[in-house]
Amino acid sequence: MNSLGSLFKVSSLGESHGDVVGCVIEGCPAGFSLDFDKIQLQVNRRKTGKQSFSSARQEDDQIEIVSGVFEGKTLGSPICILIKNKDSKPTDYDHLKDVYRPGHADYSTQQKYGFRDYRGGGRSSIRITAPMVAAGEIALQLIQHYYQVSIIAYVSQIGSVRCETDYNHLNFSQIDNSIVRCPDEDTSNRMIELIDQVQQEGDTLGGKISCVIQQLPVGIGEPIFGKLQAQLAHAMMSINTAKGFEYGDGFASASMKGSESNDLFHKTTKGIETSSNHCGGILGGISNGMVIYFNIAFKPISSIQQEQTTLNTNQDEVKLKIKGRHDVCAVPRAVPIVEAYTAIVLADLLLQSKTNQL
Amino acid sequence: MNSLGSLFKVSSLGESHGDVVGCVIEGCPAGFSLDFDKIQLQVNRRKTGKQSFSSARQEDDQIEIVSGVFEGKTLGSPICILIKNKDSKPTDYDHLKDVYRPGHADYSTQQKYGFRDYRGGGRSSIRITAPMVAAGEIALQLIQHYYQVSIIAYVSQIGSVRCETDYNHLNFSQIDNSIVRCPDEDTSNRMIELIDQVQQEGDTLGGKISCVIQQLPVGIGEPIFGKLQAQLAHAMMSINTAKGFEYGDGFASASMKGSESNDLFHKTTKGIETSSNHCGGILGGISNGMVIYFNIAFKPISSIQQEQTTLNTNQDEVKLKIKGRHDVCAVPRAVPIVEAYTAIVLADLLLQSKTNQL
Amino acid sequence: MNSLGSLFKVSSLGESHGDVVGCVIEGCPAGFSLDFDKIQLQVNRRKTGKQSFSSARQEDDQIEIVSGVFEGKTLGSPICILIKNKDSKPTDYDHLKDVYRPGHADYSTQQKYGFRDYRGGGRSSIRITAPMVAAGEIALQLIQHYYQVSIIAYVSQIGSVRCETDYNHLNFSQIDNSIVRCPDEDTSNRMIELIDQVQQEGDTLGGKISCVIQQLPVGIGEPIFGKLQAQLAHAMMSINTAKGFEYGDGFASASMKGSESNDLFHKTTKGIETSSNHCGGILGGISNGMVIYFNIAFKPISSIQQEQTTLNTNQDEVKLKIKGRHDVCAVPRAVPIVEAYTAIVLADLLLQSKTNQL
Amino acid sequence: MNSLGSLFKVSSLGESHGDVVGCVIEGCPAGFSLDFDKIQLQVNRRKTGKQSFSSARQEDDQIEIVSGVFEGKTLGSPICILIKNKDSKPTDYDHLKDVYRPGHADYSTQQKYGFRDYRGGGRSSIRITAPMVAAGEIALQLIQHYYQVSIIAYVSQIGSVRCETDYNHLNFSQIDNSIVRCPDEDTSNRMIELIDQVQQEGDTLGGKISCVIQQLPVGIGEPIFGKLQAQLAHAMMSINTAKGFEYGDGFASASMKGSESNDLFHKTTKGIETSSNHCGGILGGISNGMVIYFNIAFKPISSIQQEQTTLNTNQDEVKLKIKGRHDVCAVPRAVPIVEAYTAIVLADLLLQSKTNQL
Repeated sequence: MNSLGSLFKVSSLGESHGDVVGCVIEGCPAGFSLDFDKIQLQVNRRKTGKQSFSSARQEDDQIEIVSGVFEGKTLGSPICILIKNKDSKPTDYDHLKDVYRPGHADYSTQQKYGFRDYRGGGRSSIRITAPMVAAGEIALQLIQHYYQVSIIAYVSQIGSVRCETDYNHLNFSQIDNSIVRCPDEDTSNRMIELIDQVQQEGDTLGGKISCVIQQLPVGIGEPIFGKLQAQLAHAMMSINTAKGFEYGDGFASASMKGSESNDLFHKTTKGIETSSNHCGGILGGISNGMVIYFNIAFKPISSIQQEQTTLNTNQDEVKLKIKGRHDVCAVPRAVPIVEAYTAIVLADLLLQSKTNQL
Repeated sequence: MNSLGSLFKVSSLGESHGDVVGCVIEGCPAGFSLDFDKIQLQVNRRKTGKQSFSSARQEDDQIEIVSGVFEGKTLGSPICILIKNKDSKPTDYDHLKDVYRPGHADYSTQQKYGFRDYRGGGRSSIRITAPMVAAGEIALQLIQHYYQVSIIAYVSQIGSVRCETDYNHLNFSQIDNSIVRCPDEDTSNRMIELIDQVQQEGDTLGGKISCVIQQLPVGIGEPIFGKLQAQLAHAMMSINTAKGFEYGDGFASASMKGSESNDLFHKTTKGIETSSNHCGGILGGISNGMVIYFNIAFKPISSIQQEQTTLNTNQDEVKLKIKGRHDVCAVPRAVPIVEAYTAIVLADLLLQSKTNQL
Repeated sequence: MNSLGSLFKVSSLGESHGDVVGCVIEGCPAGFSLDFDKIQLQVNRRKTGKQSFSSARQEDDQIEIVSGVFEGKTLGSPICILIKNKDSKPTDYDHLKDVYRPGHADYSTQQKYGFRDYRGGGRSSIRITAPMVAAGEIALQLIQHYYQVSIIAYVSQIGSVRCETDYNHLNFSQIDNSIVRCPDEDTSNRMIELIDQVQQEGDTLGGKISCVIQQLPVGIGEPIFGKLQAQLAHAMMSINTAKGFEYGDGFASASMKGSESNDLFHKTTKGIETSSNHCGGILGGISNGMVIYFNIAFKPISSIQQEQTTLNTNQDEVKLKIKGRHDVCAVPRAVPIVEAYTAIVLADLLLQSKTNQL
Repeated sequence: MNSLGSLFKVSSLGESHGDVVGCVIEGCPAGFSLDFDKIQLQVNRRKTGKQSFSSARQEDDQIEIVSGVFEGKTLGSPICILIKNKDSKPTDYDHLKDVYRPGHADYSTQQKYGFRDYRGGGRSSIRITAPMVAAGEIALQLIQHYYQVSIIAYVSQIGSVRCETDYNHLNFSQIDNSIVRCPDEDTSNRMIELIDQVQQEGDTLGGKISCVIQQLPVGIGEPIFGKLQAQLAHAMMSINTAKGFEYGDGFASASMKGSESNDLFHKTTKGIETSSNHCGGILGGISNGMVIYFNIAFKPISSIQQEQTTLNTNQDEVKLKIKGRHDVCAVPRAVPIVEAYTAIVLADLLLQSKTNQL
């Protein structure tokens, strides 16, 4: 329940304000050199505090790899990645100790376990994804050592502002030039404007991330319950605040006819391709060699700066005003998470495909 | 990869035109009496051939439970459910033997395995869900033996025709009175009309199914990668032709503000509830006691009756015209599949919650 | 809990006197031709009724492969193997319905589940291994398609009669020429003599099986909890009536000194070898290229023909005399089970070793 | 492959001379108070350096619990336990860098991965069991919070010196009064004498550990491949240098008759018991309420102080003399490991038994 993947498996550990957040990678092949700077860089992309609209928590998110690596290379044994929680001031959370924050996991967690770490959401905090991003980057480096696969995610919607341009016509190199990680400059500007305005209101915003996988070999994914889209959906819906997943034409498929939705096979110099790509690069749960693309919808984050009515653990009605600066929109920071989880799913399925033959 | 669930685990087996399709349930508690008629009834709901717009294949889909049950009661040992393939005429498929049908898994499967059962899609056929529906009904009977939980799915869209009425205002008892399984009579009629028209064109339709879980206890679902919504998404995206999943406000959440999206806790005579239910009954991956609801989008089925250009296994371009009567719209038949997979996920997570204490 | 193996996984199903006993193989690579006659032959080696000292139950143990195979070749999908229970006369067991047979699982099963199939031990019967033997033969055919590995088991002890000759000096081709499956003729004769004598007494016998794996490549087995010996021990201790497992010098190692027990590496024309093989071909849980050998001890079977005092389900003391002819010594029939389980463990670990590289 | 247990699952991580050795416990119920002193005490029992005959490495083995615990109580989230490697002087191992030590995993590991951590055996070192002992103590505290179960292990053989007294007649409180952890004073003295003598020779010794589980409830263990004895065998055979496992009468059963081996049920004031306990408290893989007992044989440790001939990684013959003081006999230090692994297996199966009912 704490793990993503099966053969390339990453298991999460830690609480938001405990000693560490971390994860353990099992099944990473041995003798493979890691680029540690790139791992740290990707983790930094997820950090809070860079944008004016994000949480005030200051963490350096310095990763430590305490096992599974020797002389810069993987050993084939479990790779444990830890990030110390340094800027965790538990007293900041004393006013939330006995309160069920609306939209958060406080109430359902308390009911499930009868006991919880109330500091910053404990185990339910988005902070636990930080070491997972490091694991995802290791997965990506592993994949790219053997294949040309690329994985690119970007923000395609914030609140009511949508990026109407197709992934085919976007310049991915512009993604990180935008503080909201939308590669379309005009849309990006309108997103930032909206965020500024909503921040004034003490309110928050959700949005949508689009992800594109290029050059994945044909034949990746397993039938029935191991389908590539099912594993991606599972991974993406595991991200805090994710509310929806679709791939290929997604929800729009429901309104289409078969003659519009079918992609016809034809032969090109590169081999067998389809003339359109409504299916999003997956047929019967297995990659068909075309580009894979999918969207994830995120609800606005729940810690708004407005006063809300809620209950405390004694079931008394209380007025809640969450202290401190919090994210207005966490969607841009979720971009490296989407990429990381995608990389883990692909590393896992690529390893799985090695067992198709003895 | 063939299994749904972990503690209550259902593993699929069989090919569309092999001897049998079947499944094995592991982890079903012992000493529990099964209602065999209700199991068969639910399997029948999935069958083809009842509606004029569905496939011509005539199967009685008679289930046989060959293990795990003694004197009408579960033994705690694996329950093997088999359905014989009777109306499988392999020669019907000879013209498809060497052809990659557009929108189907033929090409990706061939590339993956280098060998495939070309008859009726083999392992990729929707037919393999038939015994899974029986397993789902067993899961439901198990759940309902101990809890008041109900699981109801219905068709909320076919092609461009949408049911605009909310689940709160629909009369679920009308679902099976509609051959398209839409409880809103007017919408149902317009759906049937659309199907008739598209059938004339030799084309096919997709749609959307909505599912509602009522009275699930608080505290069901596991954090991080065992989230209730992530497991539902995985299960639903495993259904053939599913293209999208959303729960609660889903994709609409992306455009909302936190103040609109948060559900406020308050106290009622029934205990703690939320005044609205934008979150869809799940917080932090764990049920909060409110109604859980989600949607699944399905693409139109790929076997259209129009001529299509495609490739054969020699990579020659060929004209393909699929023979025999095929489904125009398979969405209504997917309703019991959605219910079954939901029941399996819930049985699994309810069992999981038993291990929260020793 | 019903499965052996992880990537090559065999899941058991069925009860002794239910409709079928069976199993499902998952993870068998596709496109691999099966020799069905050899599978049936190996299953027949496990059958009762051939020897005068074995159970009177007459089953033809005809296997049916109902999924996962097409045109004689594996599809990569689950292979379901069924054996119908034909000679099951439930009324034969009416006198055992309410009695806890000494040495059997009746009491512990009843306490665990509160409900059980009392006919012939139900799920706890050795009969459930019959389809597992077929699965093991498939595993062996798969392994031998790619590697020169051989797996040979034989009876090395029955009651007080031990085979003192080392595996190196036995002629394995003689194993099945002995009805007790001991390749040493003199020992075999003394074993048969002992069985005849004990049969007169209405008593039963246990024994020991030795198993030898030759030409397994170096590097098979996983560290820590995936050790080759740990997986073999798990598999062997899963066989009904097994009481002990040892490999290499086994229990004798406890009395040795390091200088006696260490095997020294040296170079031969075949590569790196050890001059002795006290370790039994495994170092650190990983094969070292030398012969692997291990022993399994079995207790005498519990269904003796003498009157015994026991309790019924009302906790009343009763006299029990088991009806019908039963096995005097089941150890010879366990030989193909040991080979099958070994083959499954090896197929699984060989597949696992494919994931050491991407 | 790095994990023991399924519902109560402990995953090992770390290398002997890396930054840490550690483990992660998943599935431990929430809200349970830990006795940290007892955990550290049990870890200390496994430490080297206390006895004159053990390795010179000085580690304080101070455990750190960095996640899963809040205010002294378990959270239900993964419990990560780390022990820093402080006295690891990698240069001590430079002379072993390119040598395959006889009896060690160097050669098989190198062949498997093509790359290894040569320092102190890396991942194959017994040192990785240190945090597992902490996990085992947590498992034990959990079990004993709910049940009266006790788990006691002791040394019953070192080299040729055997403890002939039955577990029924030993005073377990004397175990830790003996530096070789044999509760029989006379045997203990003879063991120490033998160790002194063998230490002079620069040689090493193996031995046997016996383990006794008292008051485990009836009905624990799962049929077929989840048998209690199979899971214990798997766990015990995972301990470095273990060569054999037997339970109940074990290998002696092979020579017995059914009438000698069967344990007869009878009624006592405590409920249903058996008059003898040849079966070792397990019938059909499921506990029957009687005492469970088993033995594990260990080979002598391989790092002898005598010169040995071996090969280096260039396949040249070299003379090897291992430097530094090493253990003469590691069996006494394995006692807490046996107890820990037993506790983990039982915690796992006790949790499993909670899922027998919904």
